[in-house]
Amino acid sequence: MQNSIYLDHNATTPVAGEVAEAMWPYFTERHGNPSSTTPQGRRARRAVEEAREQVAALLGAHADEVVFTSGGTEANNLAVRGAADVAGTRVLVTSPVEHPATTAPVAHLRERHGWLVHELPVDPSARFLTDRWPAGPVGLGTVILAHNETGTVQPVAVFAEAVHARGGVVHTDAAQAVGKIPVQVDELGVDLLSVAGHKLYAPQGVGALFVRRGVPLSPVLRGAGQERGIRPGTENVAGIVGLGAAAELAGTLLSTEPARQAGLRERLWQLLSRALSPLVRITPSQSALPNTLLVAVPGQLGEDILARAAGVAASTGSACHAGTHTPSASLRAAGLADDVALGSLRLTLGRSTTRAEVDPAADEIVRAVLAGSRAS
Amino acid sequence: MQNSIYLDHNATTPVAGEVAEAMWPYFTERHGNPSSTTPQGRRARRAVEEAREQVAALLGAHADEVVFTSGGTEANNLAVRGAADVAGTRVLVTSPVEHPATTAPVAHLRERHGWLVHELPVDPSARFLTDRWPAGPVGLGTVILAHNETGTVQPVAVFAEAVHARGGVVHTDAAQAVGKIPVQVDELGVDLLSVAGHKLYAPQGVGALFVRRGVPLSPVLRGAGQERGIRPGTENVAGIVGLGAAAELAGTLLSTEPARQAGLRERLWQLLSRALSPLVRITPSQSALPNTLLVAVPGQLGEDILARAAGVAASTGSACHAGTHTPSASLRAAGLADDVALGSLRLTLGRSTTRAEVDPAADEIVRAVLAGSRAS
Repeated sequence: MQNSIYLDHNATTPVAGEVAEAMWPYFTERHGNPSSTTPQGRRARRAVEEAREQVAALLGAHADEVVFTSGGTEANNLAVRGAADVAGTRVLVTSPVEHPATTAPVAHLRERHGWLVHELPVDPSARFLTDRWPAGPVGLGTVILAHNETGTVQPVAVFAEAVHARGGVVHTDAAQAVGKIPVQVDELGVDLLSVAGHKLYAPQGVGALFVRRGVPLSPVLRGAGQERGIRPGTENVAGIVGLGAAAELAGTLLSTEPARQAGLRERLWQLLSRALSPLVRITPSQSALPNTLLVAVPGQLGEDILARAAGVAASTGSACHAGTHTPSASLRAAGLADDVALGSLRLTLGRSTTRAEVDPAADEIVRAVLAGSRAS
Repeated sequence: MQNSIYLDHNATTPVAGEVAEAMWPYFTERHGNPSSTTPQGRRARRAVEEAREQVAALLGAHADEVVFTSGGTEANNLAVRGAADVAGTRVLVTSPVEHPATTAPVAHLRERHGWLVHELPVDPSARFLTDRWPAGPVGLGTVILAHNETGTVQPVAVFAEAVHARGGVVHTDAAQAVGKIPVQVDELGVDLLSVAGHKLYAPQGVGALFVRRGVPLSPVLRGAGQERGIRPGTENVAGIVGLGAAAELAGTLLSTEPARQAGLRERLWQLLSRALSPLVRITPSQSALPNTLLVAVPGQLGEDILARAAGVAASTGSACHAGTHTPSASLRAAGLADDVALGSLRLTLGRSTTRAEVDPAADEIVRAVLAGSRAS
């Protein structure tokens, strides 16, 4: 496994060395419950509040607008259901290419709480179009900021303006975007924004929700008064410290890493596309996450290609259940033909990715595809 | 802070050295998303499943009955609201001395979903009595197994039998009990049981819910299919590995630590009670958590005593908001007079506690109480 080239950063990032080091004291001598008035508790409280400043700084937010959660799924649930609980209009606008952490709470609103759900149309890169709106007021709009499979960065600022014009609250799932591209809550104009630690070189099990000052929100979990009552439960101090450190680190790397990774990503695309035909590029070449390349080899299964390219760790845009292959819901909703979606490979780069990895990864994928062509 | 004697283990335990060591690889080279089919993902999946076996073993459960959560609060929310969502009868039996992580979701059921909530009576040690039941069927019973303030171990097996006889599902919040006393789901006869990592020498931000085979439960958070759909979201792999290691360690220490800590606890009580009069022992001398001693100095404020005993880190049974002191809701519900509850000190021992800590801690508390007596 040491030798496998990790091109699956959109599934999970490794924890950055700086982040692990920042967390370690909280797993050893710095124990303490932030709700306790002991010296240990007060120290833990200070650590949580410092991390809140760090996360806020990355997003261009105020510290008191950051609520820590157990991850992106909980942040999305809190945003969608917490905002819906206090909304005056049971009309929700979303897209058909959302992550299950959004589609599932949205489905719950529709099925159990009588919400009307309006889906914007999308193009084949999974970009949603903002030209078709429901008549009348909107209670809540929720869309993903950067698509987890295609890497498409969505026109969220336009969406936010349109939802606000219809009286609604705006949420965006920024799990894949934060740290990969500049994400500023005021430029986006959103009221709620989800962050997932493990997409940002922080650990799994921690995330955050930006909640703009003055935006009312009901809690989803209920308990004691932590996180201003919006998210009770003893704080994951070490994880929160890690998220803070990761946010600070991401901020310093935003001036260099996106361009570096985009350059490597284009090199990867060129190496693959020169050797393979037909090869479909689903990720747009403009305005996509700099680290994400979704390509497809029509007529082959992405899964089979990856099985032959054992030295490359990556994902496909499909799933296999009980022997049946199905395209991902997002790719199908984007209108991709099944044979394209089933032949897709998601290659996602990260901070540790180098040319010394990209070149042999491309070689290995090319060999795997050609072996599949000969076999078929 | 190095020299302060930590007697606040019921607020949070330090992470055990063995647990931190078990987690560390997952913050460094062993990254991976358990939902991914990459080698890294499969390795993460194996780690999660091994931890599930470890937690199940401590509880006398099957591995497939363990659902990982972000902590005790989420486990309680999932139990209470998940079971309520599929219950046929909207009658809930509980006690008036529950943790806010139970009282808050119970209040939500009453206020928003029309549940009738029946509270059992309690004695002054916060032990509930099982002789007064609502007429007719019960949908859900939920009680704490070991009380976080008094350390009282509740008659949960009797409770479970009575709730089952009335057709209900039984949940117990075992956050303070697991690892401190033997906790076996079949001996208790419960259907759902909450575990909190950070009370068990695992980190904050991870917990588990035991869900007995065949007991239906709705999710609270909604998303992708992790944890059999009962608790979606990318797994907190490192935290789960830590909880597994902590469970295994707790199992090995159960034959020695409870007796050792109870011996030190009784020594602490004797040192305090010989020097101070009146001193009220609220924690029962029998059938309480071995590490917990709740005492009270009527007429003084616990907070003031602890402020003068700066070398001891402990809690009180009261809270101060805006200059007003109020007894904890549990102690008030247990019928303790306000001057007793306000004068309470919660001294909770742990694995690192030694006689060399107990003796000077007792000295310091005695001095602090006597200084308060002279001042008043």
